[in-house]
Amino acid sequence: MKFDAPAAPIKVAVLGATGSVGQRFIQLLDGHPWFEVAALGASPRSAGKKYFDVCQWKQSGPIPKATGEIVVSECTPKSSAFDGVKIVFSGLDADYAGSIEDEFASHGCAVFSNALKPIHEKFGLDTVMVTTMQAISGAGYPGLSSMDMLDNIVPLIGGEEAKMETESKKVFASVVDGAFHYADFDISAMCNRVHVLDGHTECVSLKLKKKATPGEIIDAINSYPSITKGLGLPSAPTHDVVYNTSPDRPQPRLDRSVGDGYTVTVGRVRECNVFDARLVLFGHNTIVGAAGGSILNAELCVVEGLVK
Amino acid sequence: MKFDAPAAPIKVAVLGATGSVGQRFIQLLDGHPWFEVAALGASPRSAGKKYFDVCQWKQSGPIPKATGEIVVSECTPKSSAFDGVKIVFSGLDADYAGSIEDEFASHGCAVFSNALKPIHEKFGLDTVMVTTMQAISGAGYPGLSSMDMLDNIVPLIGGEEAKMETESKKVFASVVDGAFHYADFDISAMCNRVHVLDGHTECVSLKLKKKATPGEIIDAINSYPSITKGLGLPSAPTHDVVYNTSPDRPQPRLDRSVGDGYTVTVGRVRECNVFDARLVLFGHNTIVGAAGGSILNAELCVVEGLVK
Amino acid sequence: MKFDAPAAPIKVAVLGATGSVGQRFIQLLDGHPWFEVAALGASPRSAGKKYFDVCQWKQSGPIPKATGEIVVSECTPKSSAFDGVKIVFSGLDADYAGSIEDEFASHGCAVFSNALKPIHEKFGLDTVMVTTMQAISGAGYPGLSSMDMLDNIVPLIGGEEAKMETESKKVFASVVDGAFHYADFDISAMCNRVHVLDGHTECVSLKLKKKATPGEIIDAINSYPSITKGLGLPSAPTHDVVYNTSPDRPQPRLDRSVGDGYTVTVGRVRECNVFDARLVLFGHNTIVGAAGGSILNAELCVVEGLVK
Amino acid sequence: MKFDAPAAPIKVAVLGATGSVGQRFIQLLDGHPWFEVAALGASPRSAGKKYFDVCQWKQSGPIPKATGEIVVSECTPKSSAFDGVKIVFSGLDADYAGSIEDEFASHGCAVFSNALKPIHEKFGLDTVMVTTMQAISGAGYPGLSSMDMLDNIVPLIGGEEAKMETESKKVFASVVDGAFHYADFDISAMCNRVHVLDGHTECVSLKLKKKATPGEIIDAINSYPSITKGLGLPSAPTHDVVYNTSPDRPQPRLDRSVGDGYTVTVGRVRECNVFDARLVLFGHNTIVGAAGGSILNAELCVVEGLVK
Repeated sequence: MKFDAPAAPIKVAVLGATGSVGQRFIQLLDGHPWFEVAALGASPRSAGKKYFDVCQWKQSGPIPKATGEIVVSECTPKSSAFDGVKIVFSGLDADYAGSIEDEFASHGCAVFSNALKPIHEKFGLDTVMVTTMQAISGAGYPGLSSMDMLDNIVPLIGGEEAKMETESKKVFASVVDGAFHYADFDISAMCNRVHVLDGHTECVSLKLKKKATPGEIIDAINSYPSITKGLGLPSAPTHDVVYNTSPDRPQPRLDRSVGDGYTVTVGRVRECNVFDARLVLFGHNTIVGAAGGSILNAELCVVEGLVK
Repeated sequence: MKFDAPAAPIKVAVLGATGSVGQRFIQLLDGHPWFEVAALGASPRSAGKKYFDVCQWKQSGPIPKATGEIVVSECTPKSSAFDGVKIVFSGLDADYAGSIEDEFASHGCAVFSNALKPIHEKFGLDTVMVTTMQAISGAGYPGLSSMDMLDNIVPLIGGEEAKMETESKKVFASVVDGAFHYADFDISAMCNRVHVLDGHTECVSLKLKKKATPGEIIDAINSYPSITKGLGLPSAPTHDVVYNTSPDRPQPRLDRSVGDGYTVTVGRVRECNVFDARLVLFGHNTIVGAAGGSILNAELCVVEGLVK
Repeated sequence: MKFDAPAAPIKVAVLGATGSVGQRFIQLLDGHPWFEVAALGASPRSAGKKYFDVCQWKQSGPIPKATGEIVVSECTPKSSAFDGVKIVFSGLDADYAGSIEDEFASHGCAVFSNALKPIHEKFGLDTVMVTTMQAISGAGYPGLSSMDMLDNIVPLIGGEEAKMETESKKVFASVVDGAFHYADFDISAMCNRVHVLDGHTECVSLKLKKKATPGEIIDAINSYPSITKGLGLPSAPTHDVVYNTSPDRPQPRLDRSVGDGYTVTVGRVRECNVFDARLVLFGHNTIVGAAGGSILNAELCVVEGLVK
Repeated sequence: MKFDAPAAPIKVAVLGATGSVGQRFIQLLDGHPWFEVAALGASPRSAGKKYFDVCQWKQSGPIPKATGEIVVSECTPKSSAFDGVKIVFSGLDADYAGSIEDEFASHGCAVFSNALKPIHEKFGLDTVMVTTMQAISGAGYPGLSSMDMLDNIVPLIGGEEAKMETESKKVFASVVDGAFHYADFDISAMCNRVHVLDGHTECVSLKLKKKATPGEIIDAINSYPSITKGLGLPSAPTHDVVYNTSPDRPQPRLDRSVGDGYTVTVGRVRECNVFDARLVLFGHNTIVGAAGGSILNAELCVVEGLVK
């Protein structure tokens, strides 16, 4: 498939621009070959002021100069600031994201991670037992107190276990005879907040419908085609998922930059005494898991002609 | 049962006295009503010098004065320093502990944690799936580099998974018709090193032989008798295991001092989509899990007349 | 001086009881031989409910049982809950502490640390240059975000430098011919927030009025009498300040428990290329520097007959 | 000045290639337009094996593929592996670096940081009092134990204070009438190891020969020309030093990537009660302070015709 890059930059907006996901969108969109940040939405408290003056910027590196000069608007498409905007990236909190996003008729597709997808497609998931160790940036800023995280683990992330159990089934859904079917495996998730800045680590035990050895599972991971391969998307990683053969990997500090944060790393695939296999899985929560995933989806929509 | 405390202090020795478990023994034995540290064993490099001068002390609080003045000996019962010693506490590395300990004919019993024991005794364990988040002090000193732990997780602890899977079955062993039987449940352990100083956290999913609701499991924990209750042991905790009803507990920094480190804390017992129940379990690794457990066992041996 | 302990417990109250200094007061007062926590003051939001139900307890160890059952009151002496209360410990924020404390006519004296006092009394301070590395607990709970502190230093603590410069002169004030005189040395403070839970570390360079060698300064520290020595105060440390001869001390994790947190540790006294001497000084910020210092002052007031 | 880039890649070698500074050299040289890593020197233990197989790589991102395939040599120019090598980057430990580097007749110039240089050139330094908070990566790998750094500060870095006091005077040296003169200011340094991965923070108080207001000092920093400006060096930053106007900056996590780690950040210039001014200074220790500084110097030597 051959695709011609857009002739002119496509105007995009970021909602929730002062929050941590919003900041990550702005950082990742800096210098993007197709997209130009043309408008920023935030709370009424920030509206009417320059982004430089209202944003408590927490990313490494400075605020992109042109974006910093943008006057922030309220999050409503009635504001003239959003005229000509084709794509809206939303970093809004889940609590009030829905109605605002509906209003904007956002073209952004759902955000997801697919590391277990190579295994599911080849062997079929029967049962998944997962314990997560999730980064503090997942809670937004300011999020957790430093007094809660220093020398500590918090074994509860409100609503996260139920969300993971539900969303995983959606990610592996398929369309059969024109009808949409959720995947039908059993899943149990136990979620913990640990003292890591970026990147979620998951310890996973799997029962498969079709038995497979650790070697066969590793082969399935290594041979999994990038779903966006060959599409010429600016943000697409070379690999959606890679296997690291070192016995002590993946590790957050060493693997969070793989594929510029767009690639999931899997390691330690080995037999399990209870199910078929155990493994460790790692992905960057605010890139592949949030802002970056959305940008990649937006690029895909451009390629598929959904946004022009 | 009524027990009279020893008339005179019982002389004890600590082997591996300069290491981190050895230091913890010395700290916990400071001021003990029955035991008096009379000898210290360490490597030939330290032998012949005062403990004050050879030990890189890493505990909070200073070295107990009388112990600091002891001249360190090599780890062999042939040294006259060990004359009159009744109990030997060993903080030796597993690599060469066996032969030295055999030589001393140590009376110290095996060290273990028993949090899951209330559940096993009442409902019977069928399958255990556990992911651990273990403290850096478990690796001894100097152990892991600060460059490996800051902002990171290491998803491998060499040999730990196999050890946990084997030892757990020993802990729940029983004697039937005069013969010793290991417990027969299936267990799979995935072990991680996290950035916490003291205390191991475990996320556990359980399948039981006799079905039980979360409420029944919590009742079993709350009503579990302290195995050392009423024996008058100086180091015995009021509870071997307690249940914390807060949804975000146990946490290492807040729960590692419960029962002065001798009590295991359980929290978040709830249903599991795959097995019968899930829970979080926490214990202090160098107290209940190592030095402290050994001292408690030694006290028990004194009460039972095994050491006089 | 001989002092008889109070015949009956003295009733005390803690204001700001749900905050981090308030919690530390409650922890330190647990089991106190003279003082009994009889009332707790907090915001109107918490008033009327049991302390157990409104407090997000962040100390190691549980809430003292009797204190947890107390129904919290608003912070006004008009509330009957404060009837019979002789001493009020205030953990209120500085912003509104003044007027409330005035209302209660608190008997609590000023809180201070006095490590440099042995040197000042003997040699006279001429100039003090100090850079601090202060613990996150000094900012209260929740205080700083974990995202700001992990792998980071914040080189600003609002208002702290001016406060240190002013308060230090008050601490060394003296009464001459019936008039109160501030100490007259020059002082410059640079304050940083670092990733340490409890305890402030200070790197200090000193110019003295009367020249002294490092050895003479160390002697002055070692021979400094405890100001509360011999008074029989339950919380008084054996030493107000100790000198640690190890070249890599004091360290927060190892020295914050010295004297149960009531003793300041000094180390590394050595010559300075610019002034006369350099040293490192460490004290527990929420014990000697706040809650504990107040309790010690209250005990002193009891001994001196100011509270009966 | 106009300079033509080298026609063919210049072959370079890295000594101490498996250590942390050596790894940083390899990471920074990956994709360099002029330099090609052609040989790697390490200890006899690693010699004869592929770099992939002997290096415990601790940088984010993988080992550059071509470099990983290089067979490591012993650190002696007699090895044929070093034939054709023009530039040697040395990450050797100071203990034995001298004789080996002499043997190689290294062309690498001295490594230094020059943030205070704008102020010295304009106003003249009279006295410098500095307290440092230095990153753990400065100690190499494995360096400090995680048990020493978690929730802690180590107020001693062996030999560092004397080294800083001596080297600072060399950095500001000048050549007058053909003779080399060290700068003549007084300097006192107090050095601490803190829990930060990369980047050293310094709190500095300055006495100047020619009085200057904070505003004049900030102007001197902002108008300081890049010493490598206009030379077309691939690694040269746009600014050697920048001033950050935020009152809570510089911060390690937010400022270590400024100028890709080649730029020093200064903040909080303000009056001092004792000297003329106070400020906070931050630089990346393994980039501008070590590996990166050496590469920049090597590029300068190429431009000046010292290496061909």
